[in-house]
Amino acid sequence: MSSPRTTARSGPGRPGYDLDSLLSVAVKVFNEKGYEGTSMEALAQRLGITKSSIYHHVSGKEELLDLALGRALNGLFGVTTELEVTSGRYIDRLEHLVRRSVRVLATELPYVTLLLRVRGNSAVERRALARRREFDEIVTRLVTAAVEEGDLRPDIDPALISRLMFGMVNSITEWYRPRGDTSVDQLADAVAHMTFDGLRTRVR
Amino acid sequence: MSSPRTTARSGPGRPGYDLDSLLSVAVKVFNEKGYEGTSMEALAQRLGITKSSIYHHVSGKEELLDLALGRALNGLFGVTTELEVTSGRYIDRLEHLVRRSVRVLATELPYVTLLLRVRGNSAVERRALARRREFDEIVTRLVTAAVEEGDLRPDIDPALISRLMFGMVNSITEWYRPRGDTSVDQLADAVAHMTFDGLRTRVR
Repeated sequence: MSSPRTTARSGPGRPGYDLDSLLSVAVKVFNEKGYEGTSMEALAQRLGITKSSIYHHVSGKEELLDLALGRALNGLFGVTTELEVTSGRYIDRLEHLVRRSVRVLATELPYVTLLLRVRGNSAVERRALARRREFDEIVTRLVTAAVEEGDLRPDIDPALISRLMFGMVNSITEWYRPRGDTSVDQLADAVAHMTFDGLRTRVR
Repeated sequence: MSSPRTTARSGPGRPGYDLDSLLSVAVKVFNEKGYEGTSMEALAQRLGITKSSIYHHVSGKEELLDLALGRALNGLFGVTTELEVTSGRYIDRLEHLVRRSVRVLATELPYVTLLLRVRGNSAVERRALARRREFDEIVTRLVTAAVEEGDLRPDIDPALISRLMFGMVNSITEWYRPRGDTSVDQLADAVAHMTFDGLRTRVR
């Protein structure tokens, strides 16, 4: 997404903040106050460092956003190239993709939360939206192929299935808290069972 | 939610805006710019009227928010008291609630969109959040009862089912456009089929 900044990454920086921990705090503040509503000044105050210490790591607020969205997107796209998503029956590929996406959401929660709030107000945001659409298209293609293999019901439009399924997956960012009552595995099981097998115990 | 303002509703106002049409524009602007980010000045400009013309109808921005959130909540709570949700097998009540909620979302789209973005920054917002939780509890009770009647799978926590199911339903506000390719009935069918019956064509 952005060019590597080897000097900044390996440079001394202020004690306590490397690029990763800086990014982690920035994303937290973006999610709380909104990206637009967060100034570099406010970010520096929250970090307890000067603005120039932040500029030591990144060129500005937009690069922080770019890095944060890239982290969420790389997590999700990483899933699409896993062996279980690129071979086997399409329904199994799709189920694997859904389960692994739930895991990415839960482990990269603040980054994915930020990604899902992006509305396209800048070039960085529009690029992220384009990659989200690309991800949706991968899902829709898997759904279409699974319908063609006869494993998924053919009476719902594959694009609609893809939207609703990931609507459910993405909604997890609204309430999920790691170290809460629900484990990531329970969450992935619940989503997979509901969408693939349904909640009903008996066939009508 | 707010006390009736009979005089304002029936008063003369400026040509072209009664309270309903004023509210409809206000909600559109709140969704575009964010409620916090919208000033009464900006609202007046968008409406092409003076601020005092708005004050003729409502006491201020917060009353507009209150009325808008009330409209979304009344739509959703209206569903919970329908005959089909208050009698019969619990799985059928739940399915009816889900289908009718999809319809409320689609027909009151901007109002529900605004409701789903509320974060609790004021008394009005916190009251709306409390009513959302009340709605979630109604759903969870229906799920629990349907599990007890043996119609719903017992291996997923009812509160989790309720969250994921309405996560899917609410996600519709992210992309649905009335007069698009998908009708409200198709949407309700898709959600009900996916969550109750599942997408898989054969039992594993």
